[in-house]
Amino acid sequence: MSLDLAAIRIAHDRIRPHVVPTPVLRSDWLDAVGGGQLWFKCENLQHVGAFKARGATNAIFALSAADAARGVATHSSGNHAAAVARAARLRGVPAYIVMPANSARTKVANVERLGGRITFCEPTTAAREAACARILADTGARLIHPYNDFQVMAGQGTAAVELLEDVADLDLILCPVGGGGLLCGTAVAAKTLRPGIRVIAAEPAGADDAARSFRAGRIVPAEKVATIADGLRTTIGANNFPLIQRHVDDIVTVSEAGIVTAMRALWDELKVVVEPSAAVPFAAIQEGKIPVAGRRVGIILSGGNVDLAALPPGLLG
Amino acid sequence: MSLDLAAIRIAHDRIRPHVVPTPVLRSDWLDAVGGGQLWFKCENLQHVGAFKARGATNAIFALSAADAARGVATHSSGNHAAAVARAARLRGVPAYIVMPANSARTKVANVERLGGRITFCEPTTAAREAACARILADTGARLIHPYNDFQVMAGQGTAAVELLEDVADLDLILCPVGGGGLLCGTAVAAKTLRPGIRVIAAEPAGADDAARSFRAGRIVPAEKVATIADGLRTTIGANNFPLIQRHVDDIVTVSEAGIVTAMRALWDELKVVVEPSAAVPFAAIQEGKIPVAGRRVGIILSGGNVDLAALPPGLLG
Repeated sequence: MSLDLAAIRIAHDRIRPHVVPTPVLRSDWLDAVGGGQLWFKCENLQHVGAFKARGATNAIFALSAADAARGVATHSSGNHAAAVARAARLRGVPAYIVMPANSARTKVANVERLGGRITFCEPTTAAREAACARILADTGARLIHPYNDFQVMAGQGTAAVELLEDVADLDLILCPVGGGGLLCGTAVAAKTLRPGIRVIAAEPAGADDAARSFRAGRIVPAEKVATIADGLRTTIGANNFPLIQRHVDDIVTVSEAGIVTAMRALWDELKVVVEPSAAVPFAAIQEGKIPVAGRRVGIILSGGNVDLAALPPGLLG
Repeated sequence: MSLDLAAIRIAHDRIRPHVVPTPVLRSDWLDAVGGGQLWFKCENLQHVGAFKARGATNAIFALSAADAARGVATHSSGNHAAAVARAARLRGVPAYIVMPANSARTKVANVERLGGRITFCEPTTAAREAACARILADTGARLIHPYNDFQVMAGQGTAAVELLEDVADLDLILCPVGGGGLLCGTAVAAKTLRPGIRVIAAEPAGADDAARSFRAGRIVPAEKVATIADGLRTTIGANNFPLIQRHVDDIVTVSEAGIVTAMRALWDELKVVVEPSAAVPFAAIQEGKIPVAGRRVGIILSGGNVDLAALPPGLLG
C-alpha cells in the first residue's frame, strides 16, 4: 500500500473507539505573535499523551487475528513505545518493546504500566535493531515501525482530518517533523481535503535532516543531532520522504532557545503541558520563519510527555 | 433575584458567544486512584484561564446599556479581575480594578493587557473596599462582586450544565469552594437537572471557613488563612451560604501537601496546567475524603493561572 485519504478514512473508522477526538484550542495572545489566527489541535491530550496513539492503534488493529496473536514489537524510547503497548493491550496481544538502557525513568515506567514487555539494549541504533530483530525471530511478532509504515502514517493523518473538519477554511497547516509519520499523514489528508492549503513542517536546527533532505532532493542523514526535542531526533524514513517531497510545501528550522520560549508561551497561554517537540511549529512562527499574518493556521500540538522533574533549563525562569 | 436553573439557562444563552465550551478530559490512571470514573471539566482552558470568565461576562452583559456605560468595578487580585476586564472590553466599557499593591506581577500584567484600569491599595480587606467604594462614587461604575452576586453565580453554573450535557448519569459532582460562586452555580444546576446527584465541595484545611460554616449552620469566618490555593482564601458570601446549605451535600477539606500532589498528578496525566485551587477536589479523592469507588464523577477544574516562575515547592521534584 501507499498512503491516500481513503486509507486515512479507514484508519479513522478503525481507531475511533480507542482514541480521543482531541479539542482545538485558541488564544488571542498567541495569535498576536504572528498576526494570524491559530488553531491548536491538542494531541498532547490524546491517550498516552501524543498523536502516536493514532498510528500505533491503526497498525495493530489492522493486523489479521493470526498475525496479531503472535504480538507486536517496536524499538523506541518514547511516545511510540507507549502507544504500541497500549494498543496491543487493547487488542489483547503482547507488546515487545526494545528500549535503550539509558531511557528516561518516566518513559520506562509509562511503558511498564501499559503492560509492555521491555528489553533493554545499548543506546545505539545498531543495538536497538539487533535486539528487535532477535525478538521478531524468537516470537513471530510483527514490527510496528514508528513512522516508516503506511498504516502508522494513515493513523497519524486522522488528527489533521479532525482539525480540518472542526475548523473551516484553513490556509496553512503546521506540524513538527522527526521521522515523518505525522507529517505524511497530515500532508496527504490536508492536500486531498483542501487542495489549496499549504503544509509546512518545522524541525529543530539541531536535527535538521528533514530540511536538508527536502532541499537536496534525497535523504541526507543529520551529521550530529543535538536538540531537547527528543521526539524529533530520528532521521526521515525512506517511505516518508517521497510523500513529503510530493505534498509538503516547506520545511523550516528553529533554534533551541526558540523551542523553550515557545513551550513556555504554550503552557502560559493555552494552559496545556506540551513537550519540546510539540512547541517547534509555534517556535517557527515566533522566530518569523513561517509568515502567518492574516492567515488561518492549524497547528498540531504533537505531545505532552515531559518529565516534570527534569524540565529544560530556562523554561520556568 | 435569587438563583435557579432558568437564570443559569439565560446566562448560558447570553455568554455563549464569549466563552469556550470547554473540553472534558479523562484518564485511566486518575480513575484508578479512587476506583471511580472521573470526568474533568477543563475550565482552566476557559478564556482568562478560569471559570470566572463565565460569571463576569454574564453579570456585565446583563447590565442595561445605561448602567454598563459608566463602567464596572471590582476588587480582586486574581482570576475575577481578569474576567471583569475582559468582559468589560467585550462590552466596550471601562473596567476599574482595585488590586493589592503586593499582587503577583503576572496577575497585574494579565489585567493590564486586558485593558483593566488598575488602582493599587494596601493589602487589607478594608483598604480594598474603601478604594472600590471611592471608584464607584466617582465614576458611577457598577460593582461586579466576585461571588456574592446572583448573576455571577448564574454564569458560573453554566460549566456544570455543559458537563451534565456532555456526560450522562453522573452520580457525583465536585468543585472547589472559596466564596461560593462556582459552588452555588454548580449545585443549583446539578440538583435541578439531576435531582439524585450528590454535590460535594472541597476546600483547603488552611482556609476551611466553608466547611466550618456548613457544620455550624452559620457563616464562620476563617480565623487565619494559610493555603497555596490562592483562589480559595475568601470567606463564603452571605448570598452564597443559604444556597450551599440547601443544595450541597458535603464540604470536605484537604492538606496543603495533598494539593501539590494532586496538581502534579493532573499535570502529568491530563497534560493540562491547573492552579492549586483547581486541584483541591482531586486532592480530596486522593486523600480518601470523598469515596468515589464505582461512581461516575464530574469534577470542575476551576482554573490554570499559576506563575510558572514561582511554582509551589515540591511540585516538580
